[in-house]
Amino acid sequence: MDLHAYIQSVGERARSASRLMARAETGAKNRALTAIAEALLQSRECLLEANAQDADHAQRRGQDAAFVDRLTLTTQSVQAMADGLREIAALPDPVGEISGLASRPSGIRVGRMRVPLGVIGIIYESRPNVTADAAGLCLKAGNAAILRGGSESLRSNQAIAACVRQGLRAGGLPEDAVQLVETEDRAAVGELIAMKQYVDVIIPRGGKSLIERISNEAKIPVIKHLDGVCHVYIDDAADLDKAIPIADNAKTQRYGTCNTLETLLVARAIAPRALPPLCAIYRDKGVELRGDSEARTLVPFMQAAQESDWYAEYLAPILAVRVVAGLDEAIAHIARYGSQHTDAIVTENYSHALRFLREVDSSSVMVNASTRFADGFEYGLGAEIGISTDKLHARGPVGLEGLTSQKFIVLGDGHVRT
Amino acid sequence: MDLHAYIQSVGERARSASRLMARAETGAKNRALTAIAEALLQSRECLLEANAQDADHAQRRGQDAAFVDRLTLTTQSVQAMADGLREIAALPDPVGEISGLASRPSGIRVGRMRVPLGVIGIIYESRPNVTADAAGLCLKAGNAAILRGGSESLRSNQAIAACVRQGLRAGGLPEDAVQLVETEDRAAVGELIAMKQYVDVIIPRGGKSLIERISNEAKIPVIKHLDGVCHVYIDDAADLDKAIPIADNAKTQRYGTCNTLETLLVARAIAPRALPPLCAIYRDKGVELRGDSEARTLVPFMQAAQESDWYAEYLAPILAVRVVAGLDEAIAHIARYGSQHTDAIVTENYSHALRFLREVDSSSVMVNASTRFADGFEYGLGAEIGISTDKLHARGPVGLEGLTSQKFIVLGDGHVRT
Repeated sequence: MDLHAYIQSVGERARSASRLMARAETGAKNRALTAIAEALLQSRECLLEANAQDADHAQRRGQDAAFVDRLTLTTQSVQAMADGLREIAALPDPVGEISGLASRPSGIRVGRMRVPLGVIGIIYESRPNVTADAAGLCLKAGNAAILRGGSESLRSNQAIAACVRQGLRAGGLPEDAVQLVETEDRAAVGELIAMKQYVDVIIPRGGKSLIERISNEAKIPVIKHLDGVCHVYIDDAADLDKAIPIADNAKTQRYGTCNTLETLLVARAIAPRALPPLCAIYRDKGVELRGDSEARTLVPFMQAAQESDWYAEYLAPILAVRVVAGLDEAIAHIARYGSQHTDAIVTENYSHALRFLREVDSSSVMVNASTRFADGFEYGLGAEIGISTDKLHARGPVGLEGLTSQKFIVLGDGHVRT
Repeated sequence: MDLHAYIQSVGERARSASRLMARAETGAKNRALTAIAEALLQSRECLLEANAQDADHAQRRGQDAAFVDRLTLTTQSVQAMADGLREIAALPDPVGEISGLASRPSGIRVGRMRVPLGVIGIIYESRPNVTADAAGLCLKAGNAAILRGGSESLRSNQAIAACVRQGLRAGGLPEDAVQLVETEDRAAVGELIAMKQYVDVIIPRGGKSLIERISNEAKIPVIKHLDGVCHVYIDDAADLDKAIPIADNAKTQRYGTCNTLETLLVARAIAPRALPPLCAIYRDKGVELRGDSEARTLVPFMQAAQESDWYAEYLAPILAVRVVAGLDEAIAHIARYGSQHTDAIVTENYSHALRFLREVDSSSVMVNASTRFADGFEYGLGAEIGISTDKLHARGPVGLEGLTSQKFIVLGDGHVRT
């Protein structure tokens, strides 16, 4: 197979389909989403069989248990994919929304209309459920999607993609609106991220190394986050009845997510009251603590942190702890070591809260709330395709709006410029 | 000089300054803008002298008259720079604006806060007035700017940059908030557009070849437009009392701008009534017409268009003219040959107007108005740093808002995720 020619033809068909998708009615898109959900449920046996083959191959190729676990579909996960698509169908359609329409002194009226981005390339690892999620979000936002999943999940993805095509047909939409890159050849990714004329944006989902490579090599804009080194800062003016549950929840509610707390900062004045009870909770939950010398004098069972700990995204029951002089040092620490993902202050001090909100340059900045809230569902976006720590276009959890753009519209009545 | 080390140090200082700029108060920024305007007027003699040296050198290096003309400052253009800065001071500050703050079922309140992008690199040709405009817009939006003007205008830019620094000091803002790349070495551009860690976005202003090169080589996101192949489509349902003045104005009000009409499309049913009177106007104004065979049967003095004419951005008194079957063919022509800049329909038909607005995928889409309206001042943005034909982040004229981003803010009262 000529890989270049194959990916180019996928791109060309996606571009054509994107034109039809851009003008598709909301009802047609929702009918397609619902039909895909039904097709997934009806094809459950086929899906699980294809998936079992994928899992079997992965195991025989020596992939570890965690990998096979992420790859494996169950009756429940097929149901969850179908439910997710129905939820997307129930969200308002962002496309066509006109905002800010106002009259100008020249007599023209100027506003902005929300429009699809066009063609979106999604590159992800061997998690077949992403195939359905990503297809659904791109479709609802009026885009065409090119999906490139991990090669170990190809059979599962093909089975899901067949359901997606069936649903698109049922909605009267072009089948090419969602295409799967059906080759195990890893060079396909390189072709996809260079295809400027056919792809408008690339969204990689997966580990840091995958995303870093794609973002360095892509010739197309990439919406991404590399890592989540999230902070909670317990201010000297914190209410400990809020601070301790927040710092506990931010670290221990789930260890492996990008919005999990990785470095705890505590103001010197409150550290003697905050750290001992909080660290006892962590110890009871089996969290390994790595602190600076000041923190360790307060909590003797804490290990010594290295410089590298302040940069670490553990994704594990490990927490770095640092005592800081106060707000300024906390903000400076986050600016130096953070990853601009999600950072929270716990304080009752009005000025400190406002300064933290304004000055911390992260995609989500919080006051008196757990960093674990940073996701599309909690924020009311309905669903998310990922989180962006970039500053351009989309920042933070990216939902349907992040998959669209706005163009200017001008309404005149014969107006000319003088 | 070690160019790499020099540009890196410019970047590092810009990044530091950007942190102070992000928290600068509106009043300080406005005081600085006003002080820069005053400094420019007070230093007028120095500016004009430095500029005369630049112009002299450029002439001796064999630059043509148009080049020297763009480079040359006059008493009037210095006044215009000062006026422009005062206008920017009068615009509302976009930074800190909070929108969409709403309560979520969990009890947290989630909204978005508008924040600066950080460090903006502006690369432009030998037009010294861009130095003041770009500095002013970046400053007001709370960013640090690195300015790299054409090397033939270095002395002029240095004189203007001295006034900018003076104004920044007067406003109590860091002088490094606006830095000029003070070397004639063209390799400086390559260094600047690769400096990912210190520069958040590159905005190139100038000819298509400059922008194309920067956009291909940059490691940083670029906000740009390559060309403006703008269309006016006179629909079969057009009112000719509107269509003829609009098509005339869009082409002839100014020939050299990116929002000037380059290809006129006319519906077959109205062409016999529209083209003869309209083309007579064009002929009287000295516009060369290049049409397809059908247009030429209606207007005998029209020359024959080549395929390349449909792609052409003439920036000159030349116009391509094509007769199309109707709306669908017009939309298809624009999708194929257009540059997604600005396109207009003239029609009284409600459905045609809505379809054109929805389906034409350009940064500005207009009904019954001249394409010449596509700019930041006419749209009420107050000023513009450029026009973007990209879909991500900013589309169309880019004002202060396009120089900012939005982060999520979460207001809790001890909330944790369950």
